[in-house]
Amino acid sequence: MLKITLLGTGATMPRPQRALSAAVLECAGHGLLMDCGEGTQAAAQRAGVSLAKMDVICLTHYHGDHIFGLPGLLQTIGCQGRTKPLYIAGPKGLTDPEGPLMLLCRLAGRMPYPLLLLTLPPEGVKLEELAPGWPAGARLRPVPTCHRVESQGYTLELARAGRFTPEKARALGIPQRLWGALQRGQPVEAGGRMVQPEEVLGPPRRGLKVVFSGDTAPCEGLEQAARGADLLICDATYPDDRYTEQAQTYGHSTFCQSAALAARAGAKRLLLTHYSPMIADPEEHLSAAREIFPQTCCGQDGLSLTLKFEQNE
Amino acid sequence: MLKITLLGTGATMPRPQRALSAAVLECAGHGLLMDCGEGTQAAAQRAGVSLAKMDVICLTHYHGDHIFGLPGLLQTIGCQGRTKPLYIAGPKGLTDPEGPLMLLCRLAGRMPYPLLLLTLPPEGVKLEELAPGWPAGARLRPVPTCHRVESQGYTLELARAGRFTPEKARALGIPQRLWGALQRGQPVEAGGRMVQPEEVLGPPRRGLKVVFSGDTAPCEGLEQAARGADLLICDATYPDDRYTEQAQTYGHSTFCQSAALAARAGAKRLLLTHYSPMIADPEEHLSAAREIFPQTCCGQDGLSLTLKFEQNE
Repeated sequence: MLKITLLGTGATMPRPQRALSAAVLECAGHGLLMDCGEGTQAAAQRAGVSLAKMDVICLTHYHGDHIFGLPGLLQTIGCQGRTKPLYIAGPKGLTDPEGPLMLLCRLAGRMPYPLLLLTLPPEGVKLEELAPGWPAGARLRPVPTCHRVESQGYTLELARAGRFTPEKARALGIPQRLWGALQRGQPVEAGGRMVQPEEVLGPPRRGLKVVFSGDTAPCEGLEQAARGADLLICDATYPDDRYTEQAQTYGHSTFCQSAALAARAGAKRLLLTHYSPMIADPEEHLSAAREIFPQTCCGQDGLSLTLKFEQNE
Repeated sequence: MLKITLLGTGATMPRPQRALSAAVLECAGHGLLMDCGEGTQAAAQRAGVSLAKMDVICLTHYHGDHIFGLPGLLQTIGCQGRTKPLYIAGPKGLTDPEGPLMLLCRLAGRMPYPLLLLTLPPEGVKLEELAPGWPAGARLRPVPTCHRVESQGYTLELARAGRFTPEKARALGIPQRLWGALQRGQPVEAGGRMVQPEEVLGPPRRGLKVVFSGDTAPCEGLEQAARGADLLICDATYPDDRYTEQAQTYGHSTFCQSAALAARAGAKRLLLTHYSPMIADPEEHLSAAREIFPQTCCGQDGLSLTLKFEQNE
């Protein structure tokens, strides 16, 4: 089960009902924070999300509206007594001594927990290797995006083991008390040897995939990442096609461009976010996007949704 | 007329109903921002205050909960097209190239308006010299305070000219159309010579004085500044006397310490602010402070009050 909460859906500057860009993905008591605009701590409190659970803060790029909430959050987490490591992932520039991220870390000062900078390889990392407790096979990958500065999106994938076959387990003489471990993907000792999970599980089943674009114009890398995704959370800075050229110039997307990308990628659902301050009510611009991709929703601050593994598989 | 609005009244970290430290003093379409914790922009929007009017951002010290809202605010003001100078005043360390303030300015980046760092002399500055439009004689002074790092509070004084005497103006042959200028403190030409305002005005009358303490333990400098003040806005980090030692250690005040200081100084009103996150409802601790100084009120986010010159003088 994967819970997604949008903390802030605004671009550039906060609005009375719209905090700056941030979202949380939670699973099994752990979490990832996507971007950290100014006001993210307050937005998380309003949404009832604990940022103390976060293992990785995933920055899509280093513009202020995505990162100025960081030093305050790092200090608060320190005040709360954290001692386990906190990772910050980001695109190129992460470790630049004079770059925005390092300036923010210097501002925050010395922390009582290890603050580790994480440059993700293209194939991503297994989250259980960063923070024990993540489900086996949960993977965080970078997504190539196209903004006017160095940028990247993120994919979170939850793997799902094959169906457990009690008949096979019985035939191998495995006592029932060890079945749970096998179902969780752990080998067990039975009948004088190690039994591997694959021996009692069917072929791996479809897991879950969520993609967070950050700021981007439509691009091939994002489309590939969103292929078959259960949820794409995507840049929708500009409301309609009058702004297509402006979106291209500044490395953003219109509502309809994001809908078209979701349709091409065969994503299951699209959640729009990162609205320009000129957009008073994003719902006013939704119908055009839904004509292109019906499973489009407008994100709003505090919106939360839960994804589950498909029941019929 | 002077309008005071508390934007945030919290210490250390934001709380659901309490933003971090910031307050605005407004007069004649101009303003001063006292401190700028994370979330100050959003708090100003909720309070209906335009931060575009600010001429000086007055920082009391460089702890995160008082300054992390700065880079976002500086960028927003730039986006809004400001071209007139914006001043930032602060205690020692303001221009330290590796200090927090300079790191924040580097983060904000290049602005389309002059951003000027202001080290106030002990006697303060006339605000009309920084930004035309402030009433003649409005003065911003630093106040020595006692925190665990370099710190200063601020006093804003509005001067008030003496009462205008029509008989004297008539006797000097000054046409009625020039009386207004004299009342505003400007010399006028009449009867072949320059007439000075003092010739037609009585002795200066009592003006207005507001003191903003920032983070501080009770100290002589603050008490002197608060002498006869119309309003003292004061550190009340800790609720009661059980925390007196802790307040001393960290350079803060309890509710009762601030009330006692206001009483000793003969201030007219006291507004408490900068509550520790452990204080759920500051009103619960108010009665003890009121026994010491009856004109004590608990500040809260968005609280606004207006001070006027006394009518009977």
